[in-house]
Amino acid sequence: MSVQAARGTRDLLPEAMHRRLHVLGIIREIFARHGFEPLETPAIERIETLVGKYGDEGEKLVFRILERGEGGREGKADLALRYDLTVPLARVVAMNANLPLPFKRYQVQPVWRADRPQKGRFREFYQCDADIVGSTSPLADAECIAIADTAIAALGFTRFEVRVNHRALLRALAAAVGAPERESEILVALDKLDKIGREGVSSELVGRGFAPEVVDRLWTILAEPSDLDAVARAIGEAADAPAAELRTVMAHARTLGATHLVFDATLARGLGYYTGPVYEAVLTDGGVGSVSGGGRYDGLVGMFSGRAVPAVGVSLGLERLLTVMEERGMLPEVGTRTRVLVTVFSDDHAQDSLAIARQLREAGVGTETWLGAAGSLGKQFKYASGKGIPYAVVCGPAEHDAGTVNLKDLRTGTQVVLARGALADAVTG
Amino acid sequence: MSVQAARGTRDLLPEAMHRRLHVLGIIREIFARHGFEPLETPAIERIETLVGKYGDEGEKLVFRILERGEGGREGKADLALRYDLTVPLARVVAMNANLPLPFKRYQVQPVWRADRPQKGRFREFYQCDADIVGSTSPLADAECIAIADTAIAALGFTRFEVRVNHRALLRALAAAVGAPERESEILVALDKLDKIGREGVSSELVGRGFAPEVVDRLWTILAEPSDLDAVARAIGEAADAPAAELRTVMAHARTLGATHLVFDATLARGLGYYTGPVYEAVLTDGGVGSVSGGGRYDGLVGMFSGRAVPAVGVSLGLERLLTVMEERGMLPEVGTRTRVLVTVFSDDHAQDSLAIARQLREAGVGTETWLGAAGSLGKQFKYASGKGIPYAVVCGPAEHDAGTVNLKDLRTGTQVVLARGALADAVTG
Repeated sequence: MSVQAARGTRDLLPEAMHRRLHVLGIIREIFARHGFEPLETPAIERIETLVGKYGDEGEKLVFRILERGEGGREGKADLALRYDLTVPLARVVAMNANLPLPFKRYQVQPVWRADRPQKGRFREFYQCDADIVGSTSPLADAECIAIADTAIAALGFTRFEVRVNHRALLRALAAAVGAPERESEILVALDKLDKIGREGVSSELVGRGFAPEVVDRLWTILAEPSDLDAVARAIGEAADAPAAELRTVMAHARTLGATHLVFDATLARGLGYYTGPVYEAVLTDGGVGSVSGGGRYDGLVGMFSGRAVPAVGVSLGLERLLTVMEERGMLPEVGTRTRVLVTVFSDDHAQDSLAIARQLREAGVGTETWLGAAGSLGKQFKYASGKGIPYAVVCGPAEHDAGTVNLKDLRTGTQVVLARGALADAVTG
Repeated sequence: MSVQAARGTRDLLPEAMHRRLHVLGIIREIFARHGFEPLETPAIERIETLVGKYGDEGEKLVFRILERGEGGREGKADLALRYDLTVPLARVVAMNANLPLPFKRYQVQPVWRADRPQKGRFREFYQCDADIVGSTSPLADAECIAIADTAIAALGFTRFEVRVNHRALLRALAAAVGAPERESEILVALDKLDKIGREGVSSELVGRGFAPEVVDRLWTILAEPSDLDAVARAIGEAADAPAAELRTVMAHARTLGATHLVFDATLARGLGYYTGPVYEAVLTDGGVGSVSGGGRYDGLVGMFSGRAVPAVGVSLGLERLLTVMEERGMLPEVGTRTRVLVTVFSDDHAQDSLAIARQLREAGVGTETWLGAAGSLGKQFKYASGKGIPYAVVCGPAEHDAGTVNLKDLRTGTQVVLARGALADAVTG
């Protein structure tokens, strides 16, 4: 029988889990410090909930689940796997009309996408999102931007940018180049700028039937894409309000500690549902694409609830961050929290070993007892060392009679004889 | 548009999440203290991995996922949702031949079963498992039993039993009543004893064609089902070895701190894959069924790897435990960890408020800033109180000029004026 995990999925063995839990601990801490509360939603959603939210391309990647149980029709799918954490959030808000607003939640859960698996891209991966539902304040946008900046810095990165733009600026840009009704096509093309360059974007636009003058006007306006004043001036009056809003949001985010902000008039962010400020964090010293992104989406929750509910959020790309941190050796040594292996001298002494293990565990010390055949202490020490356990305890006939234990530091090889009661302190001190 | 979560699923809103994280924290701590390491496996498995592992009834409850992406055939399911955590563990061990054994892992993840939803029973629910793969030692069985006992006690329960039996005793029992080839039918019937009583089990066995004398012999042997010596004597020689093993396991488990053990010759545990000691924890003061269970299953891993690998494990019923703890008010008050709302006196003072929030967050204090319209402090205090946030900070013109803040304790209504630098200590002390 061939034994495999499902295509595009992987098991997280203890070593990988320890690293992941370390990084998730930092991210959750940043979220909680900013006043976000934990939320979890089911992995399975009704298909109707997900349909029409992710565009044609996205929709193809949604995993569908067959009906089961009573009334389950053969071959008919009625459920789907969660594709992101934003649509479920919108559903939760719509279903809980009494939720006090603003509702600030963070959510760290896997999502599933039937993408073609490739290096570093999986069909099941974690998203880490923080969203604020029910606030139109620019302070809310600023907070989400600051979280991206603060979290990436807290993970140890120093060379990164948080690029910021405003959807209303892009709308005004489309109008200014003379293609107000073709804003989304311009967005889609601009979104590829990092990958295909200005030439590539121009070809794509011309290929889509844009007149060359239109494309020229676009690059004229975007001559200095990181200069908000210049871009706003070039666009004209329609840019005034979003540019002013962006200045406020960026100033607030800087006050909140974001030190890596840059304006980027070419930042589009693919998803159709954004309505206000959008942002994306990029490591400037490695070509891994964006490691965080987000924006304001004031229309999505209303698709479910029928009432307009503003929202803004930020997502951290855990898998990419982890990959880069591993490649660059940025992770501290995080391994087993087991401190002690209690060896088993012989079957007759097993009860002694178990009593010592119990005492250590009750003191909060991560403790293993040897679960192989008793005897051969060398083998037991080797097992412990191999797992990164720093101490081994031996309790043989002499120790039994004296009420002591022999504590071996496996890193140095030194041994000491201790009273049993002194053991917990000795291995934690 | 009708907005619903998928049938048999639920959202875990912050209040529920805080309670759940509290309980999971205790469970994970117990697992880690016993030297278990974290593992996660994908939610989606190849259908072949799950088929044939859960019996006919179980197999009907497996959710199947349609093929997607390149080569995905219309209407054809090739994936399934994880049904438990044991089969994925067996797959992991088979795929990682170099894993040092014994491999002790804990796993806390949701599983999916297309059961008919009812009160307290969901189609997506968490399992919390600890398993030891690669040890035949009775110390390993004892450790799993001790974990059930210790964890349930650590959650605050006092009136519970951990019932223990041995599959080989049940096999010997079936032989002793004269139906050695019908052991599994006897198991299935006995498994219902708690629900339908001896009468019910007898009817079921007779209905299945067991002779009345066989049923009589069964109850004669099981006259004192909690007396291991008596049951073993009644069964005869074939019971000697498993009874001796069980005595050792129970003695070891008691040494490890398990104080709620009872032998129960009627304990069957439904799953076919158990081969040795089996156990189940039951609250003796509430009819919620078992809250933990486990046993030795020396054959399952070999189904994947082709080599015999012994294994033993224990599973804690998180959802049932949580339900009972909530009903009985056993959970401490666990809510938001946000300590402070920084109010916004007016738009002109927003930067001041953000700077204070940043300072608090950098000191590790969970901090919200007000994200509604500025002004009306009463409204802001009310929002904070409603969320259980204990403190509010006000920084208006007077405080701005003096470099101070006004700290209000929302529980008592008292206010103090502080230097900004003293704020973090004041709200955490």
